[in-house]
Amino acid sequence: MKKNLNISARERNDLIAAENRKQLYEHGIFTVNIIGSPGCGKTSILEYTASHFDEKFAVIIGDVKTALDSDRIIRTGQKNAYAIETGGGCHLSAGMIGEKIEEMDKKDIDYLFIENVGNLVCPSTFDLGENLKIAVLSVPEGDEKVRKYPALFIRAAAVIINKIDLLEYMDYDIQRVKEDCRAHNPKVKIFETSVKTGKGLDDFFDYLKEQRKYF
Amino acid sequence: MKKNLNISARERNDLIAAENRKQLYEHGIFTVNIIGSPGCGKTSILEYTASHFDEKFAVIIGDVKTALDSDRIIRTGQKNAYAIETGGGCHLSAGMIGEKIEEMDKKDIDYLFIENVGNLVCPSTFDLGENLKIAVLSVPEGDEKVRKYPALFIRAAAVIINKIDLLEYMDYDIQRVKEDCRAHNPKVKIFETSVKTGKGLDDFFDYLKEQRKYF
Repeated sequence: MKKNLNISARERNDLIAAENRKQLYEHGIFTVNIIGSPGCGKTSILEYTASHFDEKFAVIIGDVKTALDSDRIIRTGQKNAYAIETGGGCHLSAGMIGEKIEEMDKKDIDYLFIENVGNLVCPSTFDLGENLKIAVLSVPEGDEKVRKYPALFIRAAAVIINKIDLLEYMDYDIQRVKEDCRAHNPKVKIFETSVKTGKGLDDFFDYLKEQRKYF
Repeated sequence: MKKNLNISARERNDLIAAENRKQLYEHGIFTVNIIGSPGCGKTSILEYTASHFDEKFAVIIGDVKTALDSDRIIRTGQKNAYAIETGGGCHLSAGMIGEKIEEMDKKDIDYLFIENVGNLVCPSTFDLGENLKIAVLSVPEGDEKVRKYPALFIRAAAVIINKIDLLEYMDYDIQRVKEDCRAHNPKVKIFETSVKTGKGLDDFFDYLKEQRKYF
């Protein structure tokens, strides 16, 4: 895209996001933007997905520094894993994703999972060209995160409450969390998951397949 | 401060930070900027501090939305607690802190704890006028955070590894975390803490008292 000096950085992002979305749609690739705090389990969910989701997909993983997370995905045998090192940047942008889409072998891919930079604030409002935003919460973070970081939960179509195997060791009011999610988005779909036990992840995969039918 | 259109927002922040630092110094107030992910335990550490640190201090707590955290501190009986709601902003700025310093009763205060917005990226490089930056990590976040978010660990004088009571339930290589911290800052002071058991927090308080002597 030519640089147009009359538009803001945000408008430019949104234009590139629209181009990404169009291109992904033309290739039949349903795209999910996964957002959550550092350490909430985004990469672990994608590792589990790599070995349990019986569909063809690619993964783009953003980190401030290192390609540790994409290496974890590649080790599962998943070849379509791409790393973006933002070099300090606190969120992925549509431009960064656009470059990876160019690079990617788009044939025989039905889903694209984008793991955003670990950050509950900045990635929330940047469109990358995805079809769905998915928020990941984790039990040890505490049960008030939805109230404190509303921007993400207004926009997320689904929320994954991860590490529920730790519920028994923590004081975590999961009903309150679900109510807070619904207060921001009455139609939100909520999954309670544990990568350790696999709980809830099949339901999540079924949800993705269902969503792809209508995109 | 008069608005000077010839300087960048960052330079403006740093000028205000320098003013904050000077003003706090003149009142003998030693100031700590506490930075960590959402849910790493920043507020819980300050709650514990409110009931166990035998010095006179004030607290400023930043959140994107809500004053839930400062309410938690006020409930401990601590009167000098101030909330900043950034309304979407992903870090505190020196200007926001400057306003609270104006408002604050600075007599008989020896320490100021600033709890930054829960975010391991954006707050790292913004000077607020503090004397020390302290990073808070938490065991359930996983042991690779120092490598992935270097900007904070280059700048933090001390690192608190919190929720160590959960070590027995997790695969967390604490030696690796400490080595990564020292790779970024060989002189870093590291504390292993649990707010549940109180472990490590007295050492942290002793460290603060020692630091205040020389500021």
